[in-house]
Amino acid sequence: MSTLVVGTMAFDSLETPFGKAERIIGGSATYIGLAASNFSNDVHLVSVVGDDFPQEQLEDLTRRGVSSEGVERKKGEKSFFWSGKYHNDMNTRDTLDTQLNVLEDFQPKVPDSASEVDFLMLGNLTPSVQMDVILQMKTRPKLILLDTMNFWMDVALDELHEVLKEIDVLTINDEEARQLSGEFSLLKAARKILSMGPNVLIIKKGEHGALMFNEKEAFFAPALPLEEVFDPTGAGDTFAGGLVGHLDATNDISFDNMKRGIIYGSALASFCVEKFGTERVEELTRPEIENRVRQFIDLTQVEINLD
Amino acid sequence: MSTLVVGTMAFDSLETPFGKAERIIGGSATYIGLAASNFSNDVHLVSVVGDDFPQEQLEDLTRRGVSSEGVERKKGEKSFFWSGKYHNDMNTRDTLDTQLNVLEDFQPKVPDSASEVDFLMLGNLTPSVQMDVILQMKTRPKLILLDTMNFWMDVALDELHEVLKEIDVLTINDEEARQLSGEFSLLKAARKILSMGPNVLIIKKGEHGALMFNEKEAFFAPALPLEEVFDPTGAGDTFAGGLVGHLDATNDISFDNMKRGIIYGSALASFCVEKFGTERVEELTRPEIENRVRQFIDLTQVEINLD
Repeated sequence: MSTLVVGTMAFDSLETPFGKAERIIGGSATYIGLAASNFSNDVHLVSVVGDDFPQEQLEDLTRRGVSSEGVERKKGEKSFFWSGKYHNDMNTRDTLDTQLNVLEDFQPKVPDSASEVDFLMLGNLTPSVQMDVILQMKTRPKLILLDTMNFWMDVALDELHEVLKEIDVLTINDEEARQLSGEFSLLKAARKILSMGPNVLIIKKGEHGALMFNEKEAFFAPALPLEEVFDPTGAGDTFAGGLVGHLDATNDISFDNMKRGIIYGSALASFCVEKFGTERVEELTRPEIENRVRQFIDLTQVEINLD
Repeated sequence: MSTLVVGTMAFDSLETPFGKAERIIGGSATYIGLAASNFSNDVHLVSVVGDDFPQEQLEDLTRRGVSSEGVERKKGEKSFFWSGKYHNDMNTRDTLDTQLNVLEDFQPKVPDSASEVDFLMLGNLTPSVQMDVILQMKTRPKLILLDTMNFWMDVALDELHEVLKEIDVLTINDEEARQLSGEFSLLKAARKILSMGPNVLIIKKGEHGALMFNEKEAFFAPALPLEEVFDPTGAGDTFAGGLVGHLDATNDISFDNMKRGIIYGSALASFCVEKFGTERVEELTRPEIENRVRQFIDLTQVEINLD
């Protein structure tokens, strides 16, 4: 199977209570693509970078089975840059600087080689750009997953609603689910959001795990209690990448297999936060991943004999 | 087996986004005792009330197998009164009024009939009062569980440390675990707290579930996504009551059985919040409880074949 990931490739400058990292490689497409490449060997990226983006980074991706044919390099322009500082609780952060640069007029171009993929993962971007990608697909992917954020609910709610009608799986956090639905109960929120288009809603709750809903069922994956959370940047994208990578590798979009995908995604996200940037997710081995997944399973394991 | 519950019996006036309740019966001993009585028929309460506390309430408890022999009634005094208002998110609340009344100089007296129980559940009270109860036991209970809160960490930390040395299971929330340990990572916090005395630490995270640690293992029980959270008052005590009631009924204090206890406790807490006060937990049937437990189990059910 094959997967197309659309999103940002960026430089991030980060400060956490544990240290600082200056201009390291980040962006949603980077994290999603890297995570997915732990499972699938046919991943395509569509993104945009400037002159300043290191060619080796794209070559590294190619070696991992991630095609960067759809990554446009704009001459004389700079890559997207984000700088942020995490608070002591690691759950909240201040944005110190955002330089859109090449992202300002990003018009994604899906190369022919990626226009008939099985899985389409739309990272957090302007909803109209996400829609534009869907319209460029020659065949409707088996599954379209979309990530978004509260910012687009504030400034582009109509466009967001339009693209929600075209997708299968939406991933957002709990606050965003509450904002999008106007409901405090996540159960009620899920019901409303599923009526907007997606068949499956995944609510990411960071250190509190993830909830998944379809019309009939609910599933909860815990987060692993970790020794250190070093840098939470990219954890949500890594989660999505692990999920879509697993679905691609197994070619199974049943709710039961999405449950497994969420466990794999959670496992990858738990690695992601252990080091700055993409470092930890780049060096993973299959036994390490399986071992971590086993810890997730064990964490909720309980035998009860019911009448 | 038998259980002694020590805690408050009180009047609560509550306001939530869904309504108001004036001077309804509350208090930690009430919630814990009621919850435990769904499993065990030999529960004893030690508490204190004033003239104003309805005798029928105590008789109701007796009919449920909860002895109120150890509930002192102080002539000419008033019962403990608490009034609070929940914010829209239901996770935070303002205390509007606290009248300690009979609680001001509460000196618990453990009746002979309860001084050799198997399980001792110390509800949230001044640590020195909790210690006083332990010293009154004629035989060391098989298991001593203790609930406390940040307030005592602020004003009576030394006494709290003293009583922690004497107990087996501590239940606190995540903020309190962080405060008590000075560690942000709950894994590190658990390790530090387990070195203070308890063999088992249970971290209650409300709508985000509960974590349990011993020296070697960790367990996570999710919270059920609920349609309505009507009134969160007493949910933590109901959780503890379900746990200790299950341990009492099964006479098994292994970590595996505590996992089951946490699921039963979580199930009872999920009922508790569906109505004001103790109403919902008083009317429960065994099939209702088992059915809810099944929902908890199903929520994290996933089959993964690992290498």
